[in-house]
Amino acid sequence: MQTGPQPADFADVRATNLAVVLRHVRAHGPVSRAGIAAATGLNKATVSSLVADLIDRRLLRETGLAENRIGRPATMLVLDGSAYAAIGIEVTGDHLTAVAVDLAGEQLLSWRRAFTASFEPGRGVSAIASLAGRAASRATAQGRQVLGLTVGVPGLVDETGAVRRADALGWSDVDLRGDLIKALRKPEYDVAVDNDANLAALAEQRYGNHSGARNLIYLTGETGLGAGLIVDGRLLRGGRGFTGEIGRIQLHGGTLQELAGIESLIQRALPDADADGPITDFAPEIARLTTAARAAAPRTLDALRDVGRHLGHALSLLTNLLNPETIVLGGYFVPLATWLIPAAQAEMATHTLAPDAGGAILVPSVLGSGAAAIGGAARVLDALDTGNLPALAV
Amino acid sequence: MQTGPQPADFADVRATNLAVVLRHVRAHGPVSRAGIAAATGLNKATVSSLVADLIDRRLLRETGLAENRIGRPATMLVLDGSAYAAIGIEVTGDHLTAVAVDLAGEQLLSWRRAFTASFEPGRGVSAIASLAGRAASRATAQGRQVLGLTVGVPGLVDETGAVRRADALGWSDVDLRGDLIKALRKPEYDVAVDNDANLAALAEQRYGNHSGARNLIYLTGETGLGAGLIVDGRLLRGGRGFTGEIGRIQLHGGTLQELAGIESLIQRALPDADADGPITDFAPEIARLTTAARAAAPRTLDALRDVGRHLGHALSLLTNLLNPETIVLGGYFVPLATWLIPAAQAEMATHTLAPDAGGAILVPSVLGSGAAAIGGAARVLDALDTGNLPALAV
Repeated sequence: MQTGPQPADFADVRATNLAVVLRHVRAHGPVSRAGIAAATGLNKATVSSLVADLIDRRLLRETGLAENRIGRPATMLVLDGSAYAAIGIEVTGDHLTAVAVDLAGEQLLSWRRAFTASFEPGRGVSAIASLAGRAASRATAQGRQVLGLTVGVPGLVDETGAVRRADALGWSDVDLRGDLIKALRKPEYDVAVDNDANLAALAEQRYGNHSGARNLIYLTGETGLGAGLIVDGRLLRGGRGFTGEIGRIQLHGGTLQELAGIESLIQRALPDADADGPITDFAPEIARLTTAARAAAPRTLDALRDVGRHLGHALSLLTNLLNPETIVLGGYFVPLATWLIPAAQAEMATHTLAPDAGGAILVPSVLGSGAAAIGGAARVLDALDTGNLPALAV
Repeated sequence: MQTGPQPADFADVRATNLAVVLRHVRAHGPVSRAGIAAATGLNKATVSSLVADLIDRRLLRETGLAENRIGRPATMLVLDGSAYAAIGIEVTGDHLTAVAVDLAGEQLLSWRRAFTASFEPGRGVSAIASLAGRAASRATAQGRQVLGLTVGVPGLVDETGAVRRADALGWSDVDLRGDLIKALRKPEYDVAVDNDANLAALAEQRYGNHSGARNLIYLTGETGLGAGLIVDGRLLRGGRGFTGEIGRIQLHGGTLQELAGIESLIQRALPDADADGPITDFAPEIARLTTAARAAAPRTLDALRDVGRHLGHALSLLTNLLNPETIVLGGYFVPLATWLIPAAQAEMATHTLAPDAGGAILVPSVLGSGAAAIGGAARVLDALDTGNLPALAV
């Protein structure tokens, strides 16, 4: 089997070291060549050569700043945000979010559009492709090369980028990656499709408040419930890519999706919400819920406490299995976190075998509702960190 | 954070390549130097130098065999089993198992001893140390260097080798690694303590029938229920080392431990089993159960089907979360697998979101009841595969 080290040769050594320098500057820049050498253990001549290569590829740039120390001022290096863009799109049951991010982590655009999950998949693909095409055009118009696009979908996405099953969208067996490539007329950038919770977890790992956590679980709070699982520093993929499907966890009285999904929360706390037809956008209902919770409406507080307890019970199960350090609540759970978290934490403390819930803390995401879109871009940029660099600029 | 590549230098390159050659010979030996070069992409001079080093360390040896092909016969290389031994001990609620394994995978000894979990920890530690000491003496008497000892315990084991909680033994906060080192009078070999299910999963990965599976779950079937989780080729450890605690999974009617643990199975299928006092060794009861199942005793078949269903329900949850390829039933579940597996598979098919249970198959372990002991030895030998080689023999 393919665990353990692979053979190393000197080309690998250089690719590895290019990535090491790039990661070091991302984490610690602005930093001088001497600083990189001291921190990485690479010798100064090697660092100079690696840095020259990365500047040629427009991944690093020099700034005029100097280190504040005795001796000759050193030229400082930072990530070059000007040359590239990565695009991510999040698909949910009621909206699309598109973001473009540059290498330096700057968000170049963040768009939200209504989306009707009950569309047949063909119309859904067109809507996604149209949004992706406009985001790519915007980046290109700014003189940037688009490195890639990743689309996040709530459901089972296989290794080929096909959506095998997405209950929240009513989709099954949609070759989303293939269809998008066609609709985008074979774009020059990479196109990938991934599970939304996986992407949101990658976004937290790269940009979140707990990006240092090597063991992090991201819980989506959209119309489908899913979990992105980072254990020992790596996102779990499994045999066919189908990890983190928590909706079917059986609790007293039903499944987690039935008891703690956004739909059931709304139905319980705002029984009149779908009086004038099915809900097509949950955002206004969540805003009403937040207002009612602030006013301490008993029905709302009861519903939130129950959902918090069910979430906590399911999270104790994840905690017993995976021993996370940080659990991040995302999506529509974020504005409701004040009321959900105390009930959930109490439940976790009760049902986790390890004392102190195994050290797990429960926090709301700071990335906003489009975390999976940000994660889609992060997935593109993460590829650079493992040495998969764009070709030299011509 | 520390994901992604680390700086590479030429010493690392050599250590990496020594491990690559060692792994290649383990997987494909007997093999010639030319064969290693062709398969690994390393050049022949490098391979010759690496092989010379590994022979000096007594990790490889030459055999007289020649490859059957045109041209000059080549000297073939295999792992050298003669110089080292690794020792593993499994602790369960009713017995200890000790094994010693050489580098070539040969079991040098396999001992089973009665063990009373209700012993206070001090007596338990003495019993484990005594067994370990005898196994080490046996290996030393054969002229082998003991590379290490790993003890597997059913419960929460932290990074320091302390047992935080082991309900099946009635232990909490026992510094097992520290106490063993004292009892063994600071042995020259490494001493480690790990969760039993983790070790059994490592044993399956190295020696089992499904050793190629990159996504494998091992379910212990001892007095405590636990799972060892291998996802994407790696054993999951989590923030504090507390993964795979499945006993508390909530099902209709109780927890998995209550509904599908060995104790409850025996109580239900053999209600007279503890008529003459608490059971201190489950093996004879399991033998009675197997006999009754072969005779199609209705009470026994009902109990086994129910336990199978509960296991299947819990496994569907693991399958939804981790998408394994292979799930291995171990311990006392092995002789009962014929009756447990059909009921469990039906339940998994029903409750797993992905079609075809996400591709997961359910099989009994072929490693016997001491899989965690074998895994304890495997953990010691696995360290060699990552380049942590013993010093040159003097």
